[in-house]
Amino acid sequence: MQIGLFHSVQWPEGSDQRDRYDQALRQACRADELGFDSLWLTEHHFSRHGIVSDSLAVLAHLAARTDRVRLGTAVSVLPLHHPLRFAETAATVDQLSGGRLDLGIGSGYQPGEFRGFGVDIAEKHERFAEALAVLERVWTSEGPVSHAGRYWSFEDAAPQPRPFQRPHPPFWMATASPEGLAACAAKDWGVLLPQGTSLTVTAGQVKRYAEALAGAGADPDGGRVYLARATHVAPTDEQAWAEAEDPYKDFLGYADKLRRATSAGAAEGGRSPFDLDADLRDSALFGSPDTVVSRLRDIRELGIERVMLFLHLGGLPHEAIMSSLELIGRKVLPAVREL
Amino acid sequence: MQIGLFHSVQWPEGSDQRDRYDQALRQACRADELGFDSLWLTEHHFSRHGIVSDSLAVLAHLAARTDRVRLGTAVSVLPLHHPLRFAETAATVDQLSGGRLDLGIGSGYQPGEFRGFGVDIAEKHERFAEALAVLERVWTSEGPVSHAGRYWSFEDAAPQPRPFQRPHPPFWMATASPEGLAACAAKDWGVLLPQGTSLTVTAGQVKRYAEALAGAGADPDGGRVYLARATHVAPTDEQAWAEAEDPYKDFLGYADKLRRATSAGAAEGGRSPFDLDADLRDSALFGSPDTVVSRLRDIRELGIERVMLFLHLGGLPHEAIMSSLELIGRKVLPAVREL
Repeated sequence: MQIGLFHSVQWPEGSDQRDRYDQALRQACRADELGFDSLWLTEHHFSRHGIVSDSLAVLAHLAARTDRVRLGTAVSVLPLHHPLRFAETAATVDQLSGGRLDLGIGSGYQPGEFRGFGVDIAEKHERFAEALAVLERVWTSEGPVSHAGRYWSFEDAAPQPRPFQRPHPPFWMATASPEGLAACAAKDWGVLLPQGTSLTVTAGQVKRYAEALAGAGADPDGGRVYLARATHVAPTDEQAWAEAEDPYKDFLGYADKLRRATSAGAAEGGRSPFDLDADLRDSALFGSPDTVVSRLRDIRELGIERVMLFLHLGGLPHEAIMSSLELIGRKVLPAVREL
Repeated sequence: MQIGLFHSVQWPEGSDQRDRYDQALRQACRADELGFDSLWLTEHHFSRHGIVSDSLAVLAHLAARTDRVRLGTAVSVLPLHHPLRFAETAATVDQLSGGRLDLGIGSGYQPGEFRGFGVDIAEKHERFAEALAVLERVWTSEGPVSHAGRYWSFEDAAPQPRPFQRPHPPFWMATASPEGLAACAAKDWGVLLPQGTSLTVTAGQVKRYAEALAGAGADPDGGRVYLARATHVAPTDEQAWAEAEDPYKDFLGYADKLRRATSAGAAEGGRSPFDLDADLRDSALFGSPDTVVSRLRDIRELGIERVMLFLHLGGLPHEAIMSSLELIGRKVLPAVREL
């Protein structure tokens, strides 16, 4: 299996932004040293849910502080980006990291983020599609490109630098819908599956993806899935749950509040990746190293080879996260590497 | 005096983007080690003139690879940025660098950059003013901000993270006009003066700025000016000119071609910072260490305490630039430090 670290740099009440960034970067660098395969950063705006608003700039920084790990966005909210600027910045990070960038992309779900940028959340799917089409076009064209779209128009643009990976960094799309999975299968994009769903739901999503792959004439066992999971490892199951459960519930509660920020927003597109009705015991990987290895084995048996671990749970202290990281590095990674 | 390194990462025909980035970053890191006070990156789009399109992302990277130098944009082309995204990214770099960011800002001049983003270059001054007003407002407001402007509108946006420097990183405005200098004097913004003018012209600009400071009731000897100069140092004057003159003329010729890319663009706002009629012997600092120290002394006598050196001249080879950097570090910096 491949194991990633998934981070959003939350900013709980009473904490300091500089401390939170500093701790997050130290966690990421330690994950690199411990042999994690990838680091993934969310993009969020205007709230305490995540203060990484420019995930690519932070990955540019981590490109200098890490040697080996893949660096990913999970996800870049394409409807809120000018696609040419996004093409430039992503290619810059790909160059700075020597081709280590993975581009997780999605259409967003928080009403406040769209309102804050003056964008109608009802347009998110159309904007996502137009932005993605622009990205593909500028990265697969040799010369300047012109575009007259619904949301963006420009003439003779040849974004520089070009990506280090050709024609562009791999796309990973946050989706679980039949249409989204079919697009990923047809286009050879990876799939990002959310952390906040029970493993039963995940199993159904994986089955749908295999069908989509078959439908696209691809190997049903091929494709790429990265599943996110809230994770906390401590010497015993009891300690892991005692440390992590309340902070994670705080995180989920705040996420739900943002989703419901306006009823219109929720109705028109603010579907959250967090299923608050899911049994935490079935979604979160909290436990001893042995327990978490066993849970990862269950995930592997669903056909999922890649899991990104979300360790930064609400107000869980930095020291507890570092201790969890160390246990994962020493006891979990070696045990699941060959699965 | 304070001495900076000014870089645009040009991409001459036949060169490789990855090599050019790699060399530029090594030059920047060496400048940090040699005791330069600052690193400044241009922002350019869609051409070989400069392939740093996201200067803040590259500064995020350099924040990790340097310990001490100030990190600046020279300049960020504000009319082409969404001001909220710009606020987020700049604050991110300021956090990642522990408050080392300087924000050079300007309104741009290359017609092809505006056309490539689908922006009318005739709007550049209005867009600059609106973007800058948004930046000042979001960084001096405690809570969310709404804005209904001519070019950007949004509701309840509180960009995160907040800058490390409060209320925000220092602004440096690229300007030499009486109105621009008056704004800098009134607002306590620094002034960036261009490399491509003769020192006689620069002297007039400095005089106008002193008058603007006096007019604003500020100390006429106060204020902050960073002057850019094309620079190449070699063991002898002859060698310096032999190595640098043709590459720099190639650079200037290409810059002029971009400026003239459309006659309409040139008429409506495409005024270049490069004066092709200026005598290179009066604008460029090419020469032996003693010669360049003497030229910097002349600049200091105009009242200018800060000079950023532009060493990356067209196709001048990396090795020649590194050799120039070493001579500056060993022989020029110690001699001008106390001026």
